[in-house]
Amino acid sequence: MVNENMYGLGSKRSSIREIFEYAKARSKEIGAEHVFDFSIGNPSVPAPKAVNQAIVDAVNHTPSVALHGYTSAQGDKGVRDTIAANYTRRFGVQLSGDDLYMTCGAAASLTITFHALQNQGDEFITFAPYFAEYKVFVENSGAKFVVAPSDAKTMLPDFSALERAITPQTKGVLINSPNNPSGVVYGEKTLQALAALLRKKSAEYGKPIYLISDEPYRELVYDENTQVPSPMAYYDDTIVCYSYSKSLSLPGERIGYIAVSPKAQERDRVYAAVCGAGRALGFVCAPALFQRVAAVCDGMTSDISVYKRNRDLLYNALTAYGFTCIYPDGAFYLFMKAAEKDAKAFCAKARKYELLMVAGDDFGCEGWVRIAYCVETERIQNALPLFEKLAKEYGLI
Amino acid sequence: MVNENMYGLGSKRSSIREIFEYAKARSKEIGAEHVFDFSIGNPSVPAPKAVNQAIVDAVNHTPSVALHGYTSAQGDKGVRDTIAANYTRRFGVQLSGDDLYMTCGAAASLTITFHALQNQGDEFITFAPYFAEYKVFVENSGAKFVVAPSDAKTMLPDFSALERAITPQTKGVLINSPNNPSGVVYGEKTLQALAALLRKKSAEYGKPIYLISDEPYRELVYDENTQVPSPMAYYDDTIVCYSYSKSLSLPGERIGYIAVSPKAQERDRVYAAVCGAGRALGFVCAPALFQRVAAVCDGMTSDISVYKRNRDLLYNALTAYGFTCIYPDGAFYLFMKAAEKDAKAFCAKARKYELLMVAGDDFGCEGWVRIAYCVETERIQNALPLFEKLAKEYGLI
Repeated sequence: MVNENMYGLGSKRSSIREIFEYAKARSKEIGAEHVFDFSIGNPSVPAPKAVNQAIVDAVNHTPSVALHGYTSAQGDKGVRDTIAANYTRRFGVQLSGDDLYMTCGAAASLTITFHALQNQGDEFITFAPYFAEYKVFVENSGAKFVVAPSDAKTMLPDFSALERAITPQTKGVLINSPNNPSGVVYGEKTLQALAALLRKKSAEYGKPIYLISDEPYRELVYDENTQVPSPMAYYDDTIVCYSYSKSLSLPGERIGYIAVSPKAQERDRVYAAVCGAGRALGFVCAPALFQRVAAVCDGMTSDISVYKRNRDLLYNALTAYGFTCIYPDGAFYLFMKAAEKDAKAFCAKARKYELLMVAGDDFGCEGWVRIAYCVETERIQNALPLFEKLAKEYGLI
Repeated sequence: MVNENMYGLGSKRSSIREIFEYAKARSKEIGAEHVFDFSIGNPSVPAPKAVNQAIVDAVNHTPSVALHGYTSAQGDKGVRDTIAANYTRRFGVQLSGDDLYMTCGAAASLTITFHALQNQGDEFITFAPYFAEYKVFVENSGAKFVVAPSDAKTMLPDFSALERAITPQTKGVLINSPNNPSGVVYGEKTLQALAALLRKKSAEYGKPIYLISDEPYRELVYDENTQVPSPMAYYDDTIVCYSYSKSLSLPGERIGYIAVSPKAQERDRVYAAVCGAGRALGFVCAPALFQRVAAVCDGMTSDISVYKRNRDLLYNALTAYGFTCIYPDGAFYLFMKAAEKDAKAFCAKARKYELLMVAGDDFGCEGWVRIAYCVETERIQNALPLFEKLAKEYGLI
C-alpha cells in the first residue's frame, strides 16, 4: 500500500551502512582499536573555530525574529551576495547573489537540480565510479540514469565513451571533482575537452546539454599545484552544486548552494525552475543560522593537513606493498584495485584482517575498492601492517 | 527545456508574496507605520530564551565532530527518544523514538509523507479552507489533490461531504488543527467522528485510509479549555507532521518531525517508506544542531500571550463592527467573512484603507479573508479605526 520504491529505498541498507553496522558489532567483540573501518566518508577533523564563533556571534548580536526567521526561499540576499563575490574572486567567474540558491546541502542541491531540469524521457549521464546516491536522485526526479566508464588507468572521463552515451534525450552530464570514490580532480584540460564535446553535441541537437558539477570536496586538495577550476569558466550551461559539509566539517547541518551560470542559455528559466523544485520538494529555505555561518566561513576549511598526512601515508605504503592505487589528488578517498577480480571477495578477505573497505561495485566500478581515510592518523598507522599481510596473502610482495 | 511544472512553481509569486511585496513598496511611499500588513504568517515574537541557550550550550560543550556531524537519517536517537517521551506524557499516546523521523520542518514532513504513501492514482483529501502549499505538495508527489468543504458556520469538517469525497483511490485525509487560515481547533468530538468515518471507509475498501495531521500550530491556543488532542489517540492509521517553526519562532531553521503511529496497520512499511522518501528527496538528515535544540525545547513556546492579546483585540473589535468572524481558538489567523461576495474585491477596498489581507480564494474558500495577527499589538490597535471605516463603508455599522 505504501510506495514500493520509497519502501525499497528505506528498508534496504546501503553496503556502506552495513559495513558501518558490522564495524560497531565487531568493535564490541574485539575492541574498537582492533577494527579498521575505512567505509564512511564522515569528516574526522573539527570544524574551523570560526564556525562556532559565527554561531555564537549571530546568537548574541542578532534579534531572534531576524536570526531564526524565514529567509527568502532562495536564501538571504546578503549571504548570497557574499558567497557570490567570493566565488568571483576565487574562480574568476562573474557571479552575483541572484545566481545562487541556498540549499540544505549537496543532496538537496542535486535533487532540486534534477527535478528542475527533467522532462519525460530525459537522461542524465555520469561517469563510473560514481557516488551511489546519484542513481537514487536522478531516477526519483523521473529521469533515466546513464553511466559512462572512466578511463581505467586515470579514472578521468573517457570522452569517446561519453560521446557514445550522449543521445537527443541527454539533459545533462553530472561530474564530481574531486571525486568520490576515486579522489581524482578534473583539471583544466579535462574540463576543456568536456566543454568542447558538450558544445558540439548541444549544437548538434539544438538544445543545451547541462553540465552539473557536484563539488562537496572542492577545497579538499593536498598538493600545491592541484587546482580545482570552476567548470563555469569553460562551459556556459553549467550548474554547480556545492555543500559545506566536507570543507567545514558540517555534514549534519545541511547547508550548501546551487549556482546557475549567468551565461546559461536559459538562465532565467533554469533559476526559476530551481526555485520551483525547491518549493515542490518541501525545502522552503535553507537553515537560516547556517546560511549566516556559511557566508562568514565561505572559503575556509577544517584542518585538512590531517587528510593530506593520511593520504600520503596510505598511498605510499599501499603502493609499496604492490597494490595498484589511483593517486588521490583530493577528497578523502583512495581507490585501489582489488587484488582479485571480484572486489567483494577481496573485501571479505581484507575483513579477516579487520580491514573494512567498500567494494567498487557500489560505485558502478567492479574490481576496485574505496578506502575512506578521513580517520585518525593513528588508525592508518596501525592498519598498515595488516594491509601488508593482505598483500603477502595475494603474493604482491 | 526545463521542467514546466517547476518553472511555473518558481516563477509565479503566491498572492501572499505579492501582497508582501506591495506592502514593502507602499511603506516606502507613505511610511511603514501607515501600512497594515496582515498577510504573512511569520512569528513576530522571539524564540524562548532556552533556544539560544541550548545553541550556545551545545556549541560550548559538544565536540565539533559529534555536534555538526551526520546524525542517522531518521534523526539522533537520543533526540527522538526525548521527544517521544514528551509526546507520550503530553498526549497520552504511547510513542517511542523509533516512531519518529526528524525533518527539515513542516513542508518536508508533508512532502516526505505524501511521497512515502502515494501510488499511481491515489488521492489525498483535505478540507477547505486549506494552506495553499498542500496542493503543491500532494500533486508533486504524483497524487490527486481533492478538496472537501468545511461546515460554513463552524469551519469544522463537513462529514457528509467528506464521505462523498472518499473513493477507493483515497490514500489519506489531511487535517490541520489549529487551522491555517481559519484558526479553528479540532476537538475530541470532531476527531472521534472523523476516526469513525475513516474506520468505516477503510473497512469498506479493505485498506487503511491514512489520517495525516499537519500540526505546526499545535501549541498556539489561547483559552484555558482549548485542548489540541493527538489524532493518534482516536485513529490508528495516523501520521503526525510537526514543525517547531511556529511554537518556538524558528521558521528559518527548518526543524520538525514525522510521527508514525505505532498502531498503524502497516507501521513498519510506512516508517521505512518515510525513510526512503526522505532519502529520495535529498534530505539526508534534519539539521543536527537544531535537532538538539528541539529536544531541549520540545513543548516550550514563545511568549504566545502576545498572540492571545492580538486575537482578543481583533476579534472583539471586528465583530463589534459587524463583521462575521470565525472565533480563532488557535494559530495566529482570523478568518473573516468578506462584506461582499467577491473577497478579492473586498480586499481591494480594504487596501484603500491600507489594510492588507489575503482573500480566502487562495485557501480554497471564496467569500472570506485571512487576517494574520502575528504582528505587534500596536499595529492592530492602530488598524482598528480603519477596519471601522471599512465596516461603515459597507453599512455594517
